Amino acid sequence: MDRKIIIINGPNLNLTGSREENVYGNKSFGSFYNEELLIFAEKNDLNLEYFQSNHEGDIIDRIHDCIGHKDFIIINPGALTHYSYAIHDALAACRIPAIEVHISNIFSREDWRKLSVISPSVKGIISGFGLKSYKLALQFISES
Amino acid sequence: MDRKIIIINGPNLNLTGSREENVYGNKSFGSFYNEELLIFAEKNDLNLEYFQSNHEGDIIDRIHDCIGHKDFIIINPGALTHYSYAIHDALAACRIPAIEVHISNIFSREDWRKLSVISPSVKGIISGFGLKSYKLALQFISES
Amino acid sequence: MDRKIIIINGPNLNLTGSREENVYGNKSFGSFYNEELLIFAEKNDLNLEYFQSNHEGDIIDRIHDCIGHKDFIIINPGALTHYSYAIHDALAACRIPAIEVHISNIFSREDWRKLSVISPSVKGIISGFGLKSYKLALQFISES
Amino acid sequence: MDRKIIIINGPNLNLTGSREENVYGNKSFGSFYNEELLIFAEKNDLNLEYFQSNHEGDIIDRIHDCIGHKDFIIINPGALTHYSYAIHDALAACRIPAIEVHISNIFSREDWRKLSVISPSVKGIISGFGLKSYKLALQFISES
Amino acid sequence: MDRKIIIINGPNLNLTGSREENVYGNKSFGSFYNEELLIFAEKNDLNLEYFQSNHEGDIIDRIHDCIGHKDFIIINPGALTHYSYAIHDALAACRIPAIEVHISNIFSREDWRKLSVISPSVKGIISGFGLKSYKLALQFISES
Amino acid sequence: MDRKIIIINGPNLNLTGSREENVYGNKSFGSFYNEELLIFAEKNDLNLEYFQSNHEGDIIDRIHDCIGHKDFIIINPGALTHYSYAIHDALAACRIPAIEVHISNIFSREDWRKLSVISPSVKGIISGFGLKSYKLALQFISES
Amino acid sequence: MDRKIIIINGPNLNLTGSREENVYGNKSFGSFYNEELLIFAEKNDLNLEYFQSNHEGDIIDRIHDCIGHKDFIIINPGALTHYSYAIHDALAACRIPAIEVHISNIFSREDWRKLSVISPSVKGIISGFGLKSYKLALQFISES
Amino acid sequence: MDRKIIIINGPNLNLTGSREENVYGNKSFGSFYNEELLIFAEKNDLNLEYFQSNHEGDIIDRIHDCIGHKDFIIINPGALTHYSYAIHDALAACRIPAIEVHISNIFSREDWRKLSVISPSVKGIISGFGLKSYKLALQFISES
Amino acid sequence: MDRKIIIINGPNLNLTGSREENVYGNKSFGSFYNEELLIFAEKNDLNLEYFQSNHEGDIIDRIHDCIGHKDFIIINPGALTHYSYAIHDALAACRIPAIEVHISNIFSREDWRKLSVISPSVKGIISGFGLKSYKLALQFISES
Amino acid sequence: MDRKIIIINGPNLNLTGSREENVYGNKSFGSFYNEELLIFAEKNDLNLEYFQSNHEGDIIDRIHDCIGHKDFIIINPGALTHYSYAIHDALAACRIPAIEVHISNIFSREDWRKLSVISPSVKGIISGFGLKSYKLALQFISES
Amino acid sequence: MDRKIIIINGPNLNLTGSREENVYGNKSFGSFYNEELLIFAEKNDLNLEYFQSNHEGDIIDRIHDCIGHKDFIIINPGALTHYSYAIHDALAACRIPAIEVHISNIFSREDWRKLSVISPSVKGIISGFGLKSYKLALQFISES
Amino acid sequence: MDRKIIIINGPNLNLTGSREENVYGNKSFGSFYNEELLIFAEKNDLNLEYFQSNHEGDIIDRIHDCIGHKDFIIINPGALTHYSYAIHDALAACRIPAIEVHISNIFSREDWRKLSVISPSVKGIISGFGLKSYKLALQFISES
Repeated sequence: MDRKIIIINGPNLNLTGSREENVYGNKSFGSFYNEELLIFAEKNDLNLEYFQSNHEGDIIDRIHDCIGHKDFIIINPGALTHYSYAIHDALAACRIPAIEVHISNIFSREDWRKLSVISPSVKGIISGFGLKSYKLALQFISES
Repeated sequence: MDRKIIIINGPNLNLTGSREENVYGNKSFGSFYNEELLIFAEKNDLNLEYFQSNHEGDIIDRIHDCIGHKDFIIINPGALTHYSYAIHDALAACRIPAIEVHISNIFSREDWRKLSVISPSVKGIISGFGLKSYKLALQFISES
Repeated sequence: MDRKIIIINGPNLNLTGSREENVYGNKSFGSFYNEELLIFAEKNDLNLEYFQSNHEGDIIDRIHDCIGHKDFIIINPGALTHYSYAIHDALAACRIPAIEVHISNIFSREDWRKLSVISPSVKGIISGFGLKSYKLALQFISES
Repeated sequence: MDRKIIIINGPNLNLTGSREENVYGNKSFGSFYNEELLIFAEKNDLNLEYFQSNHEGDIIDRIHDCIGHKDFIIINPGALTHYSYAIHDALAACRIPAIEVHISNIFSREDWRKLSVISPSVKGIISGFGLKSYKLALQFISES
Repeated sequence: MDRKIIIINGPNLNLTGSREENVYGNKSFGSFYNEELLIFAEKNDLNLEYFQSNHEGDIIDRIHDCIGHKDFIIINPGALTHYSYAIHDALAACRIPAIEVHISNIFSREDWRKLSVISPSVKGIISGFGLKSYKLALQFISES
Repeated sequence: MDRKIIIINGPNLNLTGSREENVYGNKSFGSFYNEELLIFAEKNDLNLEYFQSNHEGDIIDRIHDCIGHKDFIIINPGALTHYSYAIHDALAACRIPAIEVHISNIFSREDWRKLSVISPSVKGIISGFGLKSYKLALQFISES
Repeated sequence: MDRKIIIINGPNLNLTGSREENVYGNKSFGSFYNEELLIFAEKNDLNLEYFQSNHEGDIIDRIHDCIGHKDFIIINPGALTHYSYAIHDALAACRIPAIEVHISNIFSREDWRKLSVISPSVKGIISGFGLKSYKLALQFISES
Repeated sequence: MDRKIIIINGPNLNLTGSREENVYGNKSFGSFYNEELLIFAEKNDLNLEYFQSNHEGDIIDRIHDCIGHKDFIIINPGALTHYSYAIHDALAACRIPAIEVHISNIFSREDWRKLSVISPSVKGIISGFGLKSYKLALQFISES
Repeated sequence: MDRKIIIINGPNLNLTGSREENVYGNKSFGSFYNEELLIFAEKNDLNLEYFQSNHEGDIIDRIHDCIGHKDFIIINPGALTHYSYAIHDALAACRIPAIEVHISNIFSREDWRKLSVISPSVKGIISGFGLKSYKLALQFISES
Repeated sequence: MDRKIIIINGPNLNLTGSREENVYGNKSFGSFYNEELLIFAEKNDLNLEYFQSNHEGDIIDRIHDCIGHKDFIIINPGALTHYSYAIHDALAACRIPAIEVHISNIFSREDWRKLSVISPSVKGIISGFGLKSYKLALQFISES
Repeated sequence: MDRKIIIINGPNLNLTGSREENVYGNKSFGSFYNEELLIFAEKNDLNLEYFQSNHEGDIIDRIHDCIGHKDFIIINPGALTHYSYAIHDALAACRIPAIEVHISNIFSREDWRKLSVISPSVKGIISGFGLKSYKLALQFISES
Repeated sequence: MDRKIIIINGPNLNLTGSREENVYGNKSFGSFYNEELLIFAEKNDLNLEYFQSNHEGDIIDRIHDCIGHKDFIIINPGALTHYSYAIHDALAACRIPAIEVHISNIFSREDWRKLSVISPSVKGIISGFGLKSYKLALQFISES
């Protein structure tokens, strides 16, 4: 049976491709999702779903809904990375292996971007590979 | 006339009973609410209502709605305890006496759980007694 | 053509006028908006709109919606000022000039109110002039 | 068989009722103990004893004496709360469940009162309910 | 009777217009004062005076001289903003309402520019609007 | 009627005169007390008493005993200066004007000696004048 | 031969008596100087001079001028206490025994007032006795 | 032409497989390199080399040698991650795109492991996927 | 003539052997003292005495009493290690060489246990060898 | 044409030679200037001028006057080094290459002397070579 | 069978005896090793080896080589004590009980010498007994 | 007899001239050494030697070798400047006057580059003059 995976994107990631292109690149997440991620998922028997919200509460609700329905969570919490202990707790509570991804290398930007309060409750972090960060997460899952 | 009280639970507390049981116990809040809190309230002429949300904004809205309608707020802000200055301000603005409760002893866990930004705007804190923390809050109110 | 401006108010600012009057004054934002801001806007050919929410996510959504539709954002993020890196990122991403306003002088209050995480992504800050802070922002825009 | 409980009060708590009344109220602990706590204890088959000292060493000695003789410790360490690692260690060493109580809400006062070095070795904390804080502790025990 | 206002500029502000133009713009304060501020003042019955010094002591002396002679102080302390507790004390001692202005958005520059030790003794802060920051201060006064 | 004053010395001050003479001088407190302080007190109608203890608890007890019996407390808390919040609270609770004295200039020694947790509850501090620090305190009282 | 002493007052101390009376009292320094200090000096064969400036540089110049002409310096650096390392160095360089005085108890006010950068280069500190702080300094000198 | 890649492992990584297995797993790097990485490299036309040293200087020398000879560096600096600014500078100086990998999730371990001084000079970070972290780095390169 | 040595144990060390055995071992100090330390002392012509107290003041008194009567002090201040500047001062004042011992490795436990305020006034520290830490101290003395 | 250079010395440097000789040496700056610096300047076709003030404001004024008239500034800001952001800004604004010199090695003295707030706006720093530090600065200029 | 022990000395310890004698004494480690340690080892059936290097990498290599060949490591990491997390990891990885020794009392010297990053991975610490610190370590081992 | 001097360069300085040219310039150290430093040395009877290593241990070894053979050390520790307490100790132990040089102005770059742990053990620091920093050090020596 196919493994079920959800990609959860946090605040402002809906603007990827048209936002600070020097940092985030000029490809929209939507195009990348359709052209690369979905195709990779299909080839590797992964059932992939995508969710984006600018609302911390919606993201927590969505993580809760994953209990019993998803095998992996790939999450880019956006700026919530740096203060949402509630998402940290949601991931810890749901017990589904999670991978934290970032488009840019958050460790070479402003000081406040260097701390992720989410990290202690995820399995691994992938940061800095542009939209390919998401694909690397999928590749890890496909070989697990 | 009965005093009117609301219990407000923050993010992830809907999972109590099925989440990190070693920390939060294995009884759901729902069962405890029905079996202990409601019965205690009835016996002591307290009008009790319950609200849970994973959304900071919903919690603030709910606090605002209490103005003129509730006599006490019992609040467990979950992980929002540690960064939601907006809930702090909502409690300060509504001028209804509030009691902050925590299921676990937040002062003996991770460092970041030791600071509550909510505390300066509540009357008192009860932390570490499992779900009984809520009942202690009710007991205080029933004797006030 | 009239310039289009939106005023975005964050959590608890709907209570202005009936909340800690010694800090925030006793005039409601609604009255001030109708009696002073709208009239000033009309006289100066400014198209003014108002939005308030206690939800960080709604504020971010609203900022996104401004892209292509607004020329200026006047924002009072309330207590979100002090931790919402997501609003910081939203303002930075939308590239619309923004003015951060505060009713009280946030620099003469509690220590945690002295830091705005929003400020690095706005053009300017106006703080401490009561509801007149909003009018000063409009006056700046009307002369820009 | 009745459970045996001791209330241990630290420095300056002998002055309660005649000390900074705006913070600590104007009822002496002695009156409250006789009029409320002892009566509650009797009704609930709790064997209650009271001890106060301004000496850290006496408090530690008294905690040691509890080993094998008491089932619960209710402790208000007064200002020792903020630096007596020795009391922390005494409580940890004696292995008797302890409840830390404070008359005032220590989290809304001076910064140095916000940190309790005792907390990591107690079961729970009750802070801010005036002398009722002690009663809440007894109520928790009576239902345990 | 006309209200009397003084604008006090601190160190290096005499160079505005020929100093780091990307930060401070290329218009001299003198031209702006004559072309915009004086004219605005006249139209609004404000009696305006201007004072600049690179000497902290001169600025304090000047603030003292305002007692009994000025109704408002508009002050841009330049780099003294960040360490002159003596100017803070002078403003607090003279009891004349003061407005702190900055040409650039000091909150989006070097870390040490983010802290104003002056702010706790002023009514309000206006920062980031170029030389228009001064005019906004006058506009506030003219409507007070 | 003579005013009643107590000098309270904290830990290790019984060794003054034979301890680190380069810091504390080589005169014992006892000799100084008899030869200078008592004589000054007599001449100025001050009723003087002296108390020394190495026990924080004894010092607190002694401060409590002053309530209703002493008009001034002169206290040199020794090393307790730097951590005894309990003595701070005792002084605040007893409401008797207190003067904190130190033999050496504590502000020019190790970093940890620069902070007095006692200071916020005393009227004034005299530090660095050798044993004369005590006499200055008496002189202030005699002229009050 | 009479000993020669200078009192040096820093910024804003010329306003004493008409500035924040709840902190600094309502007697002017001038009156106190004439009515108490000069008279005490005369009686005790002390040659007393007084100097006040709001300029750090003037204070340093004046300290330099004391070399070879004064036996003691009594200095109240006002707010310069908290940042003028240059005055610290001037006092250290001139090698004249200096006494630092403060009218109010600087250790019970804002956090930034608790640190004196001057203290390491003075003999002793007297803080909190109102204008009497100056007299205590004179008394110490008269008995040295 | 094949792209040339070097994997550089820092101190103690030669012990992987026989060191703290709960953290690092029980497979030796050597086996993994031969069985997975080399085979993947061959299939994807990547020229792969491996280097390990417990010497910071050797690692820096090796990075210098890559100039003109390698197209990518995959580096796991081991504990040097947390203090070797010299490796940071070496990577910055050689201008070859580098990927920082860690076997364990360094962000969920001791506090000092949460800061990488290397990160600002690499393209991206992959942390927490066991030895698969290296393979993900190769996968990224193979698709670049 | 035999050298005279005292072992001084601080708070809670009377419980060694029956307290957190995983940290402190399960042998009581009394047994170890009789079976190992006294016998070693006798064989090596050391005059050994033992003192324990939970009272900081008693420990300071006892250190004072050592002046002129003891040649070495072996001290395990228990949790007082981390805040008793008064014991630090007592050891510095008595000028008897002192050795600080700890049963557990205090540097691998909670952060607050990593700082000893006592250490700057002792000759050496021995930490982590169980009760043998005391014997090592004796061995050093016996060979000095 | 000769290059024009000014040496600007800050507070207390007029005392060099008669001030803390162990730190600053016993040669006056005046003698050194005449005997070494002027002669070197002459030989190397440098037009040299000297200015000293204990007033921050005078130093800033003097820096401003250099615009268009000097090719290099050699500055020893004395203790102003550690807090005068205004001098930092003056140097940055005047755009003349500046060299910061110190007689002593400021990095091996008190902690507060280790931070220069001036450094970010100068070309280079020379510290610790006694009065020769000034000559090294001249030597650099003469070869530029 | 004899137990096998290695003493590992870090940077600069080869200079002991001829380096800062007031801190480290004037006996060379070599003499002490031959005259005291080897003889003690022989008498107590301990197989002793000695290794010194100024290279962090060599020390790590040597620790690795101990696996399977040594029963105890006595290590004085010299200044590497304060930053070599790599040695910390090497000791943790090799699982051989280690004792950290220091010649001087590192806790009474510069602030940066008070923190050992090695300590959490050793059994015990002995600091301050001169070269005897090594002998105490051997004595502990000989009795284990 | 000629004085003997060694220049010691730390990690990555072998790349000078081909590394971040905007920071370090585009001249190689080798060329500069041959074309300027050696010639200057010859003219001034200085015996000059050069040593570079990326290995902290080699640098320490080389410093030790200087004992008795060199009169001055000129050291640019590269990034080791910021953490190598071992080099600090080596310089302190060898007692040869040392001069710390940096090509760039390290005080105007990243925060972590502002702290040199080496500085307290050198005579002086020269930073920011490009490769001329080395020559200034030689000039100082030639005139000493």
